[in-house]
Amino acid sequence: MTCISKSFYALACALLITFSSHGQERARDYGFTFGVMSPGEWNAITDVDGVMVGHQTLVKGDSVRTGVTAVLPHGGNIFQEKVPGAVYVGNGFGKLAGTTQVEELGNIETPIVLTNTLSVAAGIEGVIDYTLAHPENAHVRSVNAVVGETNDGYLNDIRGRHVRPSDVVAAIQSAQSGNVEEGNVGAGTGTICFGFKGGIGTASRKLPAEMGGYTVGVLVQTNFGGVLQIDGLPVGKELGQYAFKNQLESADGSCMIVVATDAPVHARNLKRIAKRAIMGLAKTGGIASNGSGDYVVAFSTAEGLRVPYDSNGEERLSMEVVNNDYMSGLFLATIEATEEAIINSLFAAENMKGSQGHEVNALPIEKVLEMKK
Amino acid sequence: MTCISKSFYALACALLITFSSHGQERARDYGFTFGVMSPGEWNAITDVDGVMVGHQTLVKGDSVRTGVTAVLPHGGNIFQEKVPGAVYVGNGFGKLAGTTQVEELGNIETPIVLTNTLSVAAGIEGVIDYTLAHPENAHVRSVNAVVGETNDGYLNDIRGRHVRPSDVVAAIQSAQSGNVEEGNVGAGTGTICFGFKGGIGTASRKLPAEMGGYTVGVLVQTNFGGVLQIDGLPVGKELGQYAFKNQLESADGSCMIVVATDAPVHARNLKRIAKRAIMGLAKTGGIASNGSGDYVVAFSTAEGLRVPYDSNGEERLSMEVVNNDYMSGLFLATIEATEEAIINSLFAAENMKGSQGHEVNALPIEKVLEMKK
Amino acid sequence: MTCISKSFYALACALLITFSSHGQERARDYGFTFGVMSPGEWNAITDVDGVMVGHQTLVKGDSVRTGVTAVLPHGGNIFQEKVPGAVYVGNGFGKLAGTTQVEELGNIETPIVLTNTLSVAAGIEGVIDYTLAHPENAHVRSVNAVVGETNDGYLNDIRGRHVRPSDVVAAIQSAQSGNVEEGNVGAGTGTICFGFKGGIGTASRKLPAEMGGYTVGVLVQTNFGGVLQIDGLPVGKELGQYAFKNQLESADGSCMIVVATDAPVHARNLKRIAKRAIMGLAKTGGIASNGSGDYVVAFSTAEGLRVPYDSNGEERLSMEVVNNDYMSGLFLATIEATEEAIINSLFAAENMKGSQGHEVNALPIEKVLEMKK
Amino acid sequence: MTCISKSFYALACALLITFSSHGQERARDYGFTFGVMSPGEWNAITDVDGVMVGHQTLVKGDSVRTGVTAVLPHGGNIFQEKVPGAVYVGNGFGKLAGTTQVEELGNIETPIVLTNTLSVAAGIEGVIDYTLAHPENAHVRSVNAVVGETNDGYLNDIRGRHVRPSDVVAAIQSAQSGNVEEGNVGAGTGTICFGFKGGIGTASRKLPAEMGGYTVGVLVQTNFGGVLQIDGLPVGKELGQYAFKNQLESADGSCMIVVATDAPVHARNLKRIAKRAIMGLAKTGGIASNGSGDYVVAFSTAEGLRVPYDSNGEERLSMEVVNNDYMSGLFLATIEATEEAIINSLFAAENMKGSQGHEVNALPIEKVLEMKK
Repeated sequence: MTCISKSFYALACALLITFSSHGQERARDYGFTFGVMSPGEWNAITDVDGVMVGHQTLVKGDSVRTGVTAVLPHGGNIFQEKVPGAVYVGNGFGKLAGTTQVEELGNIETPIVLTNTLSVAAGIEGVIDYTLAHPENAHVRSVNAVVGETNDGYLNDIRGRHVRPSDVVAAIQSAQSGNVEEGNVGAGTGTICFGFKGGIGTASRKLPAEMGGYTVGVLVQTNFGGVLQIDGLPVGKELGQYAFKNQLESADGSCMIVVATDAPVHARNLKRIAKRAIMGLAKTGGIASNGSGDYVVAFSTAEGLRVPYDSNGEERLSMEVVNNDYMSGLFLATIEATEEAIINSLFAAENMKGSQGHEVNALPIEKVLEMKK
Repeated sequence: MTCISKSFYALACALLITFSSHGQERARDYGFTFGVMSPGEWNAITDVDGVMVGHQTLVKGDSVRTGVTAVLPHGGNIFQEKVPGAVYVGNGFGKLAGTTQVEELGNIETPIVLTNTLSVAAGIEGVIDYTLAHPENAHVRSVNAVVGETNDGYLNDIRGRHVRPSDVVAAIQSAQSGNVEEGNVGAGTGTICFGFKGGIGTASRKLPAEMGGYTVGVLVQTNFGGVLQIDGLPVGKELGQYAFKNQLESADGSCMIVVATDAPVHARNLKRIAKRAIMGLAKTGGIASNGSGDYVVAFSTAEGLRVPYDSNGEERLSMEVVNNDYMSGLFLATIEATEEAIINSLFAAENMKGSQGHEVNALPIEKVLEMKK
Repeated sequence: MTCISKSFYALACALLITFSSHGQERARDYGFTFGVMSPGEWNAITDVDGVMVGHQTLVKGDSVRTGVTAVLPHGGNIFQEKVPGAVYVGNGFGKLAGTTQVEELGNIETPIVLTNTLSVAAGIEGVIDYTLAHPENAHVRSVNAVVGETNDGYLNDIRGRHVRPSDVVAAIQSAQSGNVEEGNVGAGTGTICFGFKGGIGTASRKLPAEMGGYTVGVLVQTNFGGVLQIDGLPVGKELGQYAFKNQLESADGSCMIVVATDAPVHARNLKRIAKRAIMGLAKTGGIASNGSGDYVVAFSTAEGLRVPYDSNGEERLSMEVVNNDYMSGLFLATIEATEEAIINSLFAAENMKGSQGHEVNALPIEKVLEMKK
Repeated sequence: MTCISKSFYALACALLITFSSHGQERARDYGFTFGVMSPGEWNAITDVDGVMVGHQTLVKGDSVRTGVTAVLPHGGNIFQEKVPGAVYVGNGFGKLAGTTQVEELGNIETPIVLTNTLSVAAGIEGVIDYTLAHPENAHVRSVNAVVGETNDGYLNDIRGRHVRPSDVVAAIQSAQSGNVEEGNVGAGTGTICFGFKGGIGTASRKLPAEMGGYTVGVLVQTNFGGVLQIDGLPVGKELGQYAFKNQLESADGSCMIVVATDAPVHARNLKRIAKRAIMGLAKTGGIASNGSGDYVVAFSTAEGLRVPYDSNGEERLSMEVVNNDYMSGLFLATIEATEEAIINSLFAAENMKGSQGHEVNALPIEKVLEMKK
């Protein structure tokens, strides 16, 4: 289903979405609010104007349960119009490609691609294919692909490396604004979170006008453990399913987090924003365990901060950026949106059976609602 | 009150403490449990064997509301027997002295001292006085004092710089094991947390034997803001007192966190532990705002990891350290103990009137308990 | 030419090598000494016992001028017996895969592979192919491939992405100890350094017995600019060829540096060693320009520091590591060996004609020797 | 001697200086050129417009041989008009105060003060005294003093802590533009470098107009070891005085480096500039030994980048900054100026006798010139 036109069909579309695929609602629909700020229209990363998300879901036979999710900072030629960016490593047992160049230059020049652990190479290859293919990029000889992953090897035949570069290109090319599919899709197809079926989740926050009116959007690929807490509710403890309690619910795994904002924030402050996303993860009960690859990629879509590939003899860049003193609202927004995005991934995910007959159940929403009363 | 002998008077002592100074109980006494692990005997940083804490509280006239808190990794000559240590910066708007040397060498060679923002120099001077004065340190010409701070300038005449090096030495020399005074004492005398009176707090966790049986202890100096959450309860929201809601409850401020463990963990993994303490802070609703100096100092008391000042021609150090694969339990313990220590600081703190007639009220515990029902 | 047996044929072999392929000698043969310490037997990274190097050189038609170089920390199953490792980023305009996991866990679990900028994905794929194929790794579902690159796009048709995963596996499988081919080979086939033909270079230092008797070996892939200085001689300035002087001699480009040592040094101190390699680069006149990807990967081959993949229930690791106080000799050795390795790459490289008719000349050794008089 | 008016008396003044105090010339006067770029008018950090330097030299009796050097980014109220700043740690065995806040916020709000290791507290206290005393700072309750040090404990009675906060204020207040005294002055009074008498040194580079025409100035406090090289000349080796060769010439010690530029460069790129200063240190033969505290503090004086203390409701900052692509010239300038500043400190320093009868000789300039022929 495509819901691009926000202005006209928004309401109808939203209604359709809510009751689409599997009839499940999102956490907020059940009264969970995750903090004190309000979400944007879609309560999704796409509430940040220009940001688009595409999924390529690979479910084949008994054992292929994986995919690709791509987040595009804007709809133009990202390589030619780079965006300010930063990476923060919550726990680095992971393979996020592109980190050091983002850190050094303070910008991102490709879509951000998420996939499985052994398919990062396919991810890079796909991003390069996509970038080199653009006619304006005919002379480009260096591409810093940002490709993250989590390990879906319990449900997916990960050693088979079923993701191909063409799947990556397809995910990028299918990206759209508006509604974002959550749960068992794209890079979240085969992931596990707090012992339940994880997946893709998203959420957003819109700051009040007096705080700048900016939007912060978050998208997550959840595949980690800990002691699940939903908007303060001790769900993991009550269900007796938490880290170190039983086998399946190992604390290991990973969480990839992408944060977008339209606030004009450059690399140093984007890194601070990225750091706060891990604080949102903490509020869900995540512990960034030893085996976890918990990474945050943050970028700003502010047009005034775009970095042209060809500096064209312009020795200087003019920019207007948010003053340090006004960053805290963006920090809070990031924490809240990350917390909600993670829980959204759990509410949207469904039971999955995969590789070697392994099965993982979705979060028992009814039991959670029971606790909430 | 002194309660050093743990073996004999522990129970009586604990009873006395609970109902001592101001009759208030700690958060756990009201049924808050903060996670799934169990605290140690004192539910304090001093549950880590050998660790001692000393306070020097300065309350004079209308406007002096400050002090010093010292944490000693062990009771010996710390300079001659350094401990593995690490620092993690949650948000660096603060003045923690000693950071870069701890990072470079991976060890700590002095007591860890906490005080107010403009008294860090007095803190360093006091630590140097204390260290040089030891007869065994007669030839020492370099001391890396670890001194942190938060800003108590709302209640305290901070510009008066009332802390003297002798106060620092006194705090160190008064350090003891066993019970740790919390609330408006030492470096927490004049601090504010979530708009309520903050202060010193402490807590601990003991891992089950099959996870190593280690103890993790945390001590905090709380002076920060956000959206207060107590063991999942949305206290700040319910009370309508949270960041960006009203003036007093600015999100700014800072939190100094000291983490001790008897697990044999060297610098790299201590830094990972330190990172998790900020996740515990996140669970209380802290947001590491722009104006916050949120620092974590972590150390291991394991005797096998002591670093002698004089290597005595020994080119190598032998050590036995916890394998990466077994770190996650320590991470969870750190998160839980930090969360509880912060809340303990709020439960122990009392109304305070100070500089320029400013007043800050303690957390209204009855209202919190009301919400808990 | 293969020179594996060090004990018997070493001398004969060394003689053969010196006058092999192109009759050129190494810098040391002309009297350059680069510091005060002595090299090991081969003056190569392979002087560190167990380290092996393999090249796959791709020279096809008019425009393929690239390749792969692999450095193996030891001859066993590296994934099952990881080595302590660290990465330091001199300037991060590059795509070194694997960085964050090495940083987090402090170890390296694959061969270190060097290639060209757009072939990092092929590098990762090849390393994964190699690792998964090992019968002992049949259940492995996560591999942190360490793959670095420099940009050979001036001489090589880099957009053609001619390196295949099979080339990477071939480079790994051809790795051997003993003599290391330098110059236009492997990942150095198409690189440019200080405006001259760059390539692969290597060197080593052996510490005196009273400093531990350790060996430090360095291998470089040189593709950067600046103001060339050879053992103090202002070669770039004298030849009028240096950064900002003329077009070809842009300061841009990159340098990948691999440092090996048999000293028992764990991650924190390996990172300090890695940092010193950039100081060696500085002595050659490199400036780590904006466009440079200057990375150092360092590891220790000490058997006592191997990290088993399967901790087998062993909660602790025993280790004996070099005391901080004894690190400085290793620092100096690293600086000297890096400086010499870079210059060796220039002495070994030969004129090259490649893509789009581009030509790059080798360093005019005679002129250099003229200056030396 | 004061030489403030650059426009009129410059030449006469320069002549006077050259032959002033002790009749020694600077390295450049003897034909050493250190690279390919040209110095500014004074070949000093003060060539960066607005930068001022003040020394307070403490030489008393047999054993006080220490002092304070202050570098002021501009002549106004630095706290109210902060400058963009960054810190890079070459080797962190040192006590640089202020690091984490500079890193977090990207700016510097005080003079940069250098002194001895055990006087950092006095340095902080003095900087706070100076800052709080300014009438415009009457409400300031937090000051991030940037205070560095090296250890002059061989020549100076360092344990006596003879530097007082008033000395620090005096150094700041005596700061001036124009000529900068070098050698045994201020914080360099008692330092040792490469086994010779070290001290304060300074140098600068002016970029050609087509590269922006910016100035980079460097000031160093030299107190470190290694294998001395002067503009490529192997002085340490030839004199047989180098690290690990003999006792006095331990490689230990430290180097504080301050880099100023008028180029509009914000924190991220200032950190990259700071990193290059260590490359300049490397070219003199420094090795950043284990016991070394090698720190670089870099700042930009560009007026458009000043950060007002009171954001006055301005949510955004407008700025014009140098594009990444144009940074490399500033990197080269930093490397060259640092190298020359270090050597200048050696040329200016004179024999010194101090604490416990210890004596350290100046660099034997005649022997160096002999080698140069």
